[in-house]
Amino acid sequence: MPNAAAIVTAALLVIGDEILSGRTKDKNIGYVADYLTALGIDLREVRVVPDDETEIVDALNALRARYSYVFTTGGIGPTHDDITADCVAKAFGVGISHDERAVAMLRERYANAEDLTEARLRMARIPHGADLVENPISKAPGFRIGNVIVMAGVPSIMQAMLDAVAPTLRTGVKMQSVSIDTRALPEGLYGTALGAVQKEHPGVVIGSYPSFDGKRFTNQIVVRARDEAVLAAAAAAVEAMLSRLESERAEKP
Amino acid sequence: MPNAAAIVTAALLVIGDEILSGRTKDKNIGYVADYLTALGIDLREVRVVPDDETEIVDALNALRARYSYVFTTGGIGPTHDDITADCVAKAFGVGISHDERAVAMLRERYANAEDLTEARLRMARIPHGADLVENPISKAPGFRIGNVIVMAGVPSIMQAMLDAVAPTLRTGVKMQSVSIDTRALPEGLYGTALGAVQKEHPGVVIGSYPSFDGKRFTNQIVVRARDEAVLAAAAAAVEAMLSRLESERAEKP
Repeated sequence: MPNAAAIVTAALLVIGDEILSGRTKDKNIGYVADYLTALGIDLREVRVVPDDETEIVDALNALRARYSYVFTTGGIGPTHDDITADCVAKAFGVGISHDERAVAMLRERYANAEDLTEARLRMARIPHGADLVENPISKAPGFRIGNVIVMAGVPSIMQAMLDAVAPTLRTGVKMQSVSIDTRALPEGLYGTALGAVQKEHPGVVIGSYPSFDGKRFTNQIVVRARDEAVLAAAAAAVEAMLSRLESERAEKP
Repeated sequence: MPNAAAIVTAALLVIGDEILSGRTKDKNIGYVADYLTALGIDLREVRVVPDDETEIVDALNALRARYSYVFTTGGIGPTHDDITADCVAKAFGVGISHDERAVAMLRERYANAEDLTEARLRMARIPHGADLVENPISKAPGFRIGNVIVMAGVPSIMQAMLDAVAPTLRTGVKMQSVSIDTRALPEGLYGTALGAVQKEHPGVVIGSYPSFDGKRFTNQIVVRARDEAVLAAAAAAVEAMLSRLESERAEKP
């Protein structure tokens, strides 16, 4: 059993003008959040920054100092606006050049020498000292340097790179969660009582999440904890609280 | 005509454990990005932080110092995990208490006095000096203090609050964009030439965006600028470059 004190954290840095302009709708944040939660890594922060060297370098340095891992998506393709690898090298203060292992991967894909254009070769520029992250889809690799893992922005490639890197990651005790339907009770009726349950169960994190379908609200209460017994006790307290409020409501004239 | 030098910037701060755990998939980032771009406000950064006072206050203070506006989503409901209003008050160093205007809005919705529970009244706690942002859907208002605009996390309510606040926002010259289909030319073939076009047209921002449908990549080149003539010239240069590469390719034996 892993050490219960071992909490492994992460940040995700999404790089790209196209997300901030609205041109592209991000599909990676939710996927990475689910994936890391399932692995036992707590995603603690996400940032989206433009294709701007200073912004990327500053965000990388702020995040890698704070979290166990920093995952990046975007900016590792063959065009001039793909500047992530250079920014990572700058953040770490290391050089960057064509990596022989990465060039070999691209040669495998572009067997015909004239197809391995200067632009495509850009994708083999890797900061010195980095390990490569395999890309089974289009070959051009991601990489890992220190606690920073650099991945593609195209969702299917990003997902394959996460699969490739996952076995090498340190993980902590998984956060478990229980979702509780509030049986049509609105937040405004259980809010105060739920706050009291949270106070009595400091070992769990309780959230209340409304959704609105255009006509009415439905709510879910989510209880989260790393310890199963602590989680079960808090979830039972929430259920008991909801049952109490439900019968009080039914008894009203 | 607005002053071409007037660039208005914004950051979006998404607040909520549920986004970072993957439990809820954010639908607000892409919407806000499109909305602000259409208004003439440049979204420059997005951060997602958990329901943690220090994280929220620190992010608010970092972002409000850097950008014309900071929009927040999430954490203004009636439950104990809704701490955004308190964090905003703390970031601005002002008090917070039940706001009479907000209480009146809630009374309108909860006409029966016993329905206006302590939990619901929490939603009328507003930092001192803030203006309210109307919520036509569920009445509990957002608010604006200084350059920070605080909105709900539920997408339909967030969208209504954006509509309510939009007419009061300062806007800049809109960023215009042209999307160019690359006629089945891959990034690796036009990457170097596109970089040259970007260098010759420093007044525009050119991005190249691949998508992968599971079988093949398609690409779009997006040219962006505030000045229409500058934009048109750069877009024409991209088209000419693609035509040249296309005919070179067709001429190959």
